[in-house]
Amino acid sequence: MTEPFSLSVNATDGAARTGVIKTPRGEIRTPAFMPVGTAGTVKAMLPEHVRATGADIVLGNTYHLMLRPTAERVAKLGGLHQFMNWSRPILTDSGGFQVMSLSKLRKLTEDGVSFQSHIDGSRHMLTPERSIEIQCLLGSDIQMQLDECPAIPIEHDKARESMLLSARWAERSKRAFEELSKPGQALFGIVQGANYEDLRRESLDKLIEIDFPGYSIGGLAVGEGREEMFRVLDFTCPHMPADKPRYLMGVGKPADIVGAVARGVDMFDCVAPTRSGRHGQAWTKTGAINIKNAIFAEDPEPLDPESDCPASRDYSKAYLHHLFKAGEYLGPMLLTWHNLQYYQDLMSGLREAIASARLAAYIENFKSETGETLV
Amino acid sequence: MTEPFSLSVNATDGAARTGVIKTPRGEIRTPAFMPVGTAGTVKAMLPEHVRATGADIVLGNTYHLMLRPTAERVAKLGGLHQFMNWSRPILTDSGGFQVMSLSKLRKLTEDGVSFQSHIDGSRHMLTPERSIEIQCLLGSDIQMQLDECPAIPIEHDKARESMLLSARWAERSKRAFEELSKPGQALFGIVQGANYEDLRRESLDKLIEIDFPGYSIGGLAVGEGREEMFRVLDFTCPHMPADKPRYLMGVGKPADIVGAVARGVDMFDCVAPTRSGRHGQAWTKTGAINIKNAIFAEDPEPLDPESDCPASRDYSKAYLHHLFKAGEYLGPMLLTWHNLQYYQDLMSGLREAIASARLAAYIENFKSETGETLV
Repeated sequence: MTEPFSLSVNATDGAARTGVIKTPRGEIRTPAFMPVGTAGTVKAMLPEHVRATGADIVLGNTYHLMLRPTAERVAKLGGLHQFMNWSRPILTDSGGFQVMSLSKLRKLTEDGVSFQSHIDGSRHMLTPERSIEIQCLLGSDIQMQLDECPAIPIEHDKARESMLLSARWAERSKRAFEELSKPGQALFGIVQGANYEDLRRESLDKLIEIDFPGYSIGGLAVGEGREEMFRVLDFTCPHMPADKPRYLMGVGKPADIVGAVARGVDMFDCVAPTRSGRHGQAWTKTGAINIKNAIFAEDPEPLDPESDCPASRDYSKAYLHHLFKAGEYLGPMLLTWHNLQYYQDLMSGLREAIASARLAAYIENFKSETGETLV
Repeated sequence: MTEPFSLSVNATDGAARTGVIKTPRGEIRTPAFMPVGTAGTVKAMLPEHVRATGADIVLGNTYHLMLRPTAERVAKLGGLHQFMNWSRPILTDSGGFQVMSLSKLRKLTEDGVSFQSHIDGSRHMLTPERSIEIQCLLGSDIQMQLDECPAIPIEHDKARESMLLSARWAERSKRAFEELSKPGQALFGIVQGANYEDLRRESLDKLIEIDFPGYSIGGLAVGEGREEMFRVLDFTCPHMPADKPRYLMGVGKPADIVGAVARGVDMFDCVAPTRSGRHGQAWTKTGAINIKNAIFAEDPEPLDPESDCPASRDYSKAYLHHLFKAGEYLGPMLLTWHNLQYYQDLMSGLREAIASARLAAYIENFKSETGETLV
């Protein structure tokens, strides 16, 4: 019998792998990109269009949802899937990262983190147990342990202290999850340790001892740069269990994803395609462009005439330029949609390349077409 | 042989009529509601969803488009239909009404109106001839003569002076249209005369003498109130040619439309469903609601569970409430879509009621369900 939550690796190419994560709410093809639906909506997108781009799973943010509309209200309304009209898998973060980046008057203790809402100033406490309780109220399929996510650079002793706190929180998270979760839901442990090889190994060893159905790599994409991030992946990924999903949190730009997939990462999330789309940036096969640039004012070509995505195919760059100049809703709507399609096309291209053992050629082509440098 | 632009009235019920306007770009079922696509987009809507609600035609605003991206640029890019990805009929106004309401430093002369753009302060001149030139560059299927549209109340002699200017502009518009238009395009004359019966008759007589394929009723919904508007329709509509479309410009709320259809009007446009949708107001079968109201915070019911429209059917009021509270794009997107569906359902209900000679019963039902009073 198959586990209710399990990864099947179907093919490998070097360190890269492609496969399927099976969950009761549907399969997740890996490597997978998860669009970010912060407050119960992938911004400016209809859920049916998110799905149409090829997304198998979306992400929800515990911090935002616990404050508004609150996890209790979402639970009362049937859970996050029903609330946001998305029946497939949902991953939620623990809330910890955004407490540290968005809230006010934070205080971190062994117990957890107390903070003041950025919305209305109300006081809250997030502990490993409360984070799991919230994620179970939301009903997410893949949940994250509460962790502390320090910026890089950080001194070794401070990084170790923080990593050890996250490891203790991992254990508390697992106990809470065992009590509150339903069959088929999964809790991931989060590898911390900044950019220190010994700390990443120590963190990973502790998490493997606790035993999780998947492992996240946290604390990257926090300003360390692409080269340094890849260096951390180079000494971390090879030690991660081969039969469990590996999720690189908050990453990234297309070139980040391509490089991380080559190093064995299975799952990604990032606000880049949606946030950039709302601000007029579009990824194309030949690199990123800003549609507000005057050179597009009379450009009759669509962003991608060969795409099946209406947003990429049915509107000229001149029209998109006009929509952004005029401040029309449709501009962010179409560019977000296009960018999410670009990301999903990138993922399916990577999956096919790995399955046919031609990832190196795929990456060379990506580099030459986009002009991106991958270390 | 059928005219390239023609109205066939298929049934009447009292003064009300239902039929089809045939144009080279497709049929327009009447009574028709035309969603407003001011700057080349029905705000917050994909064109395929505008069509899916049942809209046969949309409206574009000459004033906005002449300023940005300019009519010349739209023409260079293949015309407004191609620009905005809408292949069916488009009606454009003359620009006159919005010059008077939006622009700065207006100066009205016999020749036309000079003004300063509200966007960048640039100076422009709109004459009857230039308005037609712009509308032909946009390539709209139904065009409007330039007119002056005074507010009500207005003194009789001032109203007559203004109406006579509009009549002279009607003649100049027609000459320009004959020179610049393509087969199948139509120019409507606009009946003015404020709320004076003799002036409305005099205006109509002059327009009929010039001869247009359709007649608009202008200068209403400018603050005179529903009862007074209906009174003007009562003494104007019976004298309008029965074989030509009658278009009541800028109207209106659902109850305005129901009352005007009963008086023999065929075509309507209004920003109400789109603008209200962006601000959280939704029309429902039992009247208008504001989704931001706290009573909807935990309401699990959708706006209309029996609708075929995803926006009306697939999201709870609690979710829509949350989207507006959180300032998410999806709130205006879904409420606009829902409202446009409500309007098109209203129009198809009116068409069916007229076709089966039960309009009076339809109106009684509308009044009792919505609580609206129709004079």
